[in-house]
Amino acid sequence: MKIKAIFFDIDDTLYDSTLQTDMARRNTIRAMIEAGLEIEEDEGIKALNEIVEKFGSNYGYHLNELLREFGYEENPRIIAAGIVAYHSTKIAYLVPFPDTIPTLLKLRDLGYGLGVITDGIAVKQWEKLIRLGLQHFFDSVIISEEIGIEKPNPEMFKIAARKIKCKPEEAIMVGDRIDKDIVGANKVGMLTVQLMHGKHMDEIPKNPDEEPDYIISNLRDILKVLKEIKKRN
Amino acid sequence: MKIKAIFFDIDDTLYDSTLQTDMARRNTIRAMIEAGLEIEEDEGIKALNEIVEKFGSNYGYHLNELLREFGYEENPRIIAAGIVAYHSTKIAYLVPFPDTIPTLLKLRDLGYGLGVITDGIAVKQWEKLIRLGLQHFFDSVIISEEIGIEKPNPEMFKIAARKIKCKPEEAIMVGDRIDKDIVGANKVGMLTVQLMHGKHMDEIPKNPDEEPDYIISNLRDILKVLKEIKKRN
Repeated sequence: MKIKAIFFDIDDTLYDSTLQTDMARRNTIRAMIEAGLEIEEDEGIKALNEIVEKFGSNYGYHLNELLREFGYEENPRIIAAGIVAYHSTKIAYLVPFPDTIPTLLKLRDLGYGLGVITDGIAVKQWEKLIRLGLQHFFDSVIISEEIGIEKPNPEMFKIAARKIKCKPEEAIMVGDRIDKDIVGANKVGMLTVQLMHGKHMDEIPKNPDEEPDYIISNLRDILKVLKEIKKRN
Repeated sequence: MKIKAIFFDIDDTLYDSTLQTDMARRNTIRAMIEAGLEIEEDEGIKALNEIVEKFGSNYGYHLNELLREFGYEENPRIIAAGIVAYHSTKIAYLVPFPDTIPTLLKLRDLGYGLGVITDGIAVKQWEKLIRLGLQHFFDSVIISEEIGIEKPNPEMFKIAARKIKCKPEEAIMVGDRIDKDIVGANKVGMLTVQLMHGKHMDEIPKNPDEEPDYIISNLRDILKVLKEIKKRN
């Protein structure tokens, strides 16, 4: 079967979201210390990580919780210092991997349809694509909030294929997460490529459904995968 | 009476918030047009201004309203393009007036206590001070949300004076708004200085309570005002 389309996850696939998150949290704590919070940097980061884990990443009051955790009263000055540092760092690190744009350009030149399949809030995911400068690269962007289902629901991958006018077997899914990207795409018969990067890198396939067809460590290696597939056919 | 302290409003007093807002809205509309919204720039800006007027500036869905206004369906891509442009522009224009920092430094050198008296959400106002790089300049920052009353409530100015350990008559209030800054400070016996800048510049005192003691067109002219006051005493 000839490959016609390639789909990508965004976070930790098109850009380094693990590094972004780590740096944003570190700089948040540093700024709060600078603003008067008397704690050690590392204990602050540990506490913040636990709070995000507990309340979820879309909760709006992580830093208020953090102050409470260390016995501080509400302090808008310290919270604001953290927020400014957090957002500045998030934006500063919202840049594609060095090989993202060259690889996507090459894939377009080769005639592949390109798409995004991502979980999250639609406006937020579009914000990422726009800040990454990638908003014009994709023929189709499927975001969970807009269609009401999330990865690994196979329906999401089917919708993506239909929208780009190919069969699932004619498409490749590239992502970092076995539980989200690989499992879902495997189920509909897409070829799957795991990008070994970020905090989900160490998760290991527990059964054949979770096995990616290919493993790459840089996005540009997708070009090698395509050659490999051609050779096999 | 010897002047001991000087209080400042933030918006359109320490930085050019009128220019910031105008530019942020213009760039929002430009980015939305670039992302596919087919309208004229000027009609878009006019509509956005009316929407902010109608729903208030802290409403979270101005751009959704804008799309609806022009007969478009929800479109996270276009909304995200607007949001990115809005925030980038807001941050880019969050810089002090050229004479803000030199003037504040000079006033500190001269031994005056410095304070901020501002309406708004505490974290947001602190964010402004931090991004302006002014967070360490003030001995006291009074924000309406934290004390539960807003300008021109005289109590707010009394609290500010008490916190900086001076009598209201020993303090000067500098702001751009007659209805908020001048009226409130006049009532507690502070000397009042209107900075003629921004969108409230054309409002005219309607009675003696609304008359500022001094009018300046640049922040550095506060130094002339102080000389004038010394001469009179």
